[in-house]
Amino acid sequence: MNTMEHQSPTSLSALLDRLREQLGDNAVITGNDVTARSVDWLTGAPCLAAAIVRPGTPDELADILRLCHAARQPVVTHGGLTGLVHGTEASSEELVISLERLDAIEAIDPVGATLTVQAGAPLQKVQEAAEEAGLQFALDLGARGSCTIGGNIATNAGGNRVIRYGMMRQQVLGLEAVLADGCIISSMSPMLKNNAGYDLKQLFIGSEGTLGIVTRAVLRLQPAMPDTRAALVACPSFEALTGLLGHMRQTLGGELSAFEAMWRNHYRLLTEISGRHAPPLSTESPFYVIIESQAVDADRHGERFDQAFESAIEEGLLTDAAIAQSDAQRDGLWAIREDIEGLVSLLAPVMTFDVSLPIGDMDAYVEHVETMLREHWPSGRLVVFGHLGDGNLHLSVGVGSDDADTRHRVERCIYEPLADLGGSVSTEHGIGLEKRSWLHVSRTPEEIAVMATLKQALDSHSLLNRNKVITTDLQDAH
Amino acid sequence: MNTMEHQSPTSLSALLDRLREQLGDNAVITGNDVTARSVDWLTGAPCLAAAIVRPGTPDELADILRLCHAARQPVVTHGGLTGLVHGTEASSEELVISLERLDAIEAIDPVGATLTVQAGAPLQKVQEAAEEAGLQFALDLGARGSCTIGGNIATNAGGNRVIRYGMMRQQVLGLEAVLADGCIISSMSPMLKNNAGYDLKQLFIGSEGTLGIVTRAVLRLQPAMPDTRAALVACPSFEALTGLLGHMRQTLGGELSAFEAMWRNHYRLLTEISGRHAPPLSTESPFYVIIESQAVDADRHGERFDQAFESAIEEGLLTDAAIAQSDAQRDGLWAIREDIEGLVSLLAPVMTFDVSLPIGDMDAYVEHVETMLREHWPSGRLVVFGHLGDGNLHLSVGVGSDDADTRHRVERCIYEPLADLGGSVSTEHGIGLEKRSWLHVSRTPEEIAVMATLKQALDSHSLLNRNKVITTDLQDAH
Repeated sequence: MNTMEHQSPTSLSALLDRLREQLGDNAVITGNDVTARSVDWLTGAPCLAAAIVRPGTPDELADILRLCHAARQPVVTHGGLTGLVHGTEASSEELVISLERLDAIEAIDPVGATLTVQAGAPLQKVQEAAEEAGLQFALDLGARGSCTIGGNIATNAGGNRVIRYGMMRQQVLGLEAVLADGCIISSMSPMLKNNAGYDLKQLFIGSEGTLGIVTRAVLRLQPAMPDTRAALVACPSFEALTGLLGHMRQTLGGELSAFEAMWRNHYRLLTEISGRHAPPLSTESPFYVIIESQAVDADRHGERFDQAFESAIEEGLLTDAAIAQSDAQRDGLWAIREDIEGLVSLLAPVMTFDVSLPIGDMDAYVEHVETMLREHWPSGRLVVFGHLGDGNLHLSVGVGSDDADTRHRVERCIYEPLADLGGSVSTEHGIGLEKRSWLHVSRTPEEIAVMATLKQALDSHSLLNRNKVITTDLQDAH
Repeated sequence: MNTMEHQSPTSLSALLDRLREQLGDNAVITGNDVTARSVDWLTGAPCLAAAIVRPGTPDELADILRLCHAARQPVVTHGGLTGLVHGTEASSEELVISLERLDAIEAIDPVGATLTVQAGAPLQKVQEAAEEAGLQFALDLGARGSCTIGGNIATNAGGNRVIRYGMMRQQVLGLEAVLADGCIISSMSPMLKNNAGYDLKQLFIGSEGTLGIVTRAVLRLQPAMPDTRAALVACPSFEALTGLLGHMRQTLGGELSAFEAMWRNHYRLLTEISGRHAPPLSTESPFYVIIESQAVDADRHGERFDQAFESAIEEGLLTDAAIAQSDAQRDGLWAIREDIEGLVSLLAPVMTFDVSLPIGDMDAYVEHVETMLREHWPSGRLVVFGHLGDGNLHLSVGVGSDDADTRHRVERCIYEPLADLGGSVSTEHGIGLEKRSWLHVSRTPEEIAVMATLKQALDSHSLLNRNKVITTDLQDAH
């Protein structure tokens, strides 16, 4: 859909001139410097935007949006570009706003356990700053070195420790965002509790930059947990796997910080078949789990951890366990689970999916998906792992091709069964462009209508990440 | 402001006839049966609404709102009526919709750890149902026997265990609400993680019924913590009090479930002065705290708990401690903290406040408020307690009168200093009618404008809890 007919090339170049004038030449990138950049990590495709604008302060970002709003210029926001749903794609008629210069950690309050940060700061930088202050930032995911706090907020990121600390939404106390018209909404309260009117920050968390651009946040920090224990275990059945989850929740209580299940097809591919990792346990079990626990008291925590596994063996919930005895061993276990590069290369061209469904339905669901995929692509490959305690599975599919038609047929196998199960087509990756046509599987027409109402109320010209998440009727916008 | 000029008495009575026809006579209460009911627990004032309508199902509620929307009839929603900000007040031109018949627990899923409930169910009923299933529902507050889940959601209730489990917002996985026009928005996903489009339920949590009426919810349950320990301690200074918070967070880790501070004026009033409770510790310390910890392993938990206090004494963070040795002793400690009835009667007429501010500023803030109150009312009384770990203080003031002018002058003493401190005028009670004129202390004009935009987008005639939280310009509504 070409929505820019009303705008002549002159006006775009006039806008860029105006932006250079206001922000300095260095803040506006055009030409080869744009296409030399990738639009995201997964596709590696060149950025096609008309230009990339890089504000140095939240006020500069507000200036940019004010000018773009006056010119009805649509923009796409870029953070760490680690998203998986084409949420950062930009057409030649769009401007990209990159938050790469907004990467400062502005303040840490060890007493209040908060950290104030700009949206472009990488997750790992925040984790390290929290550690230096004797605390921890609880969100953690494989892309920690590249992904940004702003992207984590815009997509309501999940990751490995949701079972204990919740998603990104739970880590955000205060937030600042700029609306499509350049108005700065500053809700930077560091308060854990604040019921003074509507909690506006919730609008911007998880709406993928379509309602506003996040510029700064006050994040909640957690007490440091100096003692981390991890183990890889083999489970004899899906029943044992869910029983083990209940067992670990009960015996480790609030200390359980990860319960990451791997179907045999995942574990075996990344160890035995590919040789990318030495298998810590033999590969014939149907399920494997990385279990992690974090506590403050090393000695007793070790005892509690070991006992939890001993009693699990007695109850037949696992058949074998490799308990990490060092940080290096622990990293080795996680390396299998986090080897997304391996997965992508082994299944290339890979299609990745991120769904949720009731835990009790997972085994049958995966079998059903596998059967359907086999029917169409007998030599295709399905690999399954996920955050079991969160009801969240990641499915990776390689069928030798990923053209639009193939992709759609694979998507049908994955998504259609979710409707009856009350599952979700997106659990932590978001909707972006990729899942927009499947939103109806998880959302009612009434829900989607309210989403459109919100978009219209806050961005009536649909200038922010246009047509991401939901399509917008632009009849009223011009 | 009389906003009903457009509606003749006939049309209201015609609407009531229509509602009786559709829902049955029993569902519509009028006349003395209305005024015989209180509008809330705090004031005990009679309900002045034109009628009280009691839907038996969410669909009936949708029917009611559809008819009210067609007649432009404003409504006020009633739950357990335990609110403290006049959020349930209704004029003779409004209808009350009471959710008292929508009180069923619809389902419990022990494996997924979720509970599906209707909005009118009391909190305690949900807590007990979770316990019967071997789990716990984490929200807890003094009004548990009367307050309803719908009210807890609409006000984003807090309570005693926020430090460990977060507020009501964190307990809600799925939600169903009816919009002003009768459209049912059903987002009843039981999934812990669901990023399929905007997270609409966040709109209805904490917006005090002004954007929609909550009818049902899927709540998250937590593992049962069979072993609860509690102690009351005396702190020699504010510095020691905050030091103790940090110490308990570090030594008890994730097991710390409450850290409830009482200023001496609170502890002494409810024990020594009034004789309502025998003081477990002498009353000359400046600060007292109830510290609670919950864990799964009784023996070792007891050891960890006792050791945390021993090391705190060594570090000079507390001068005396009464560690409860039985459930009865633990209940006795909590009874002091939760004796709101005592507080209300001892300070009558009482004004209660619920503010948040950075913990480090609390001591000076309370002293400042006390000085200002003393200037105006030398024999007035200020009593302070609060959820210290959450940055949340409850201030109760008795100055012998609570007429509008006195109230306003007291409010100035309490609220005005918060602006410079980045504090909030409402932490868990909400805004309702009472704090509407103080919203600007904690929210920028831009934030309040966005709230009005949302209200306009979702309830353009301002029919739901009209003029609660924010005033609405009704020029466009007729």
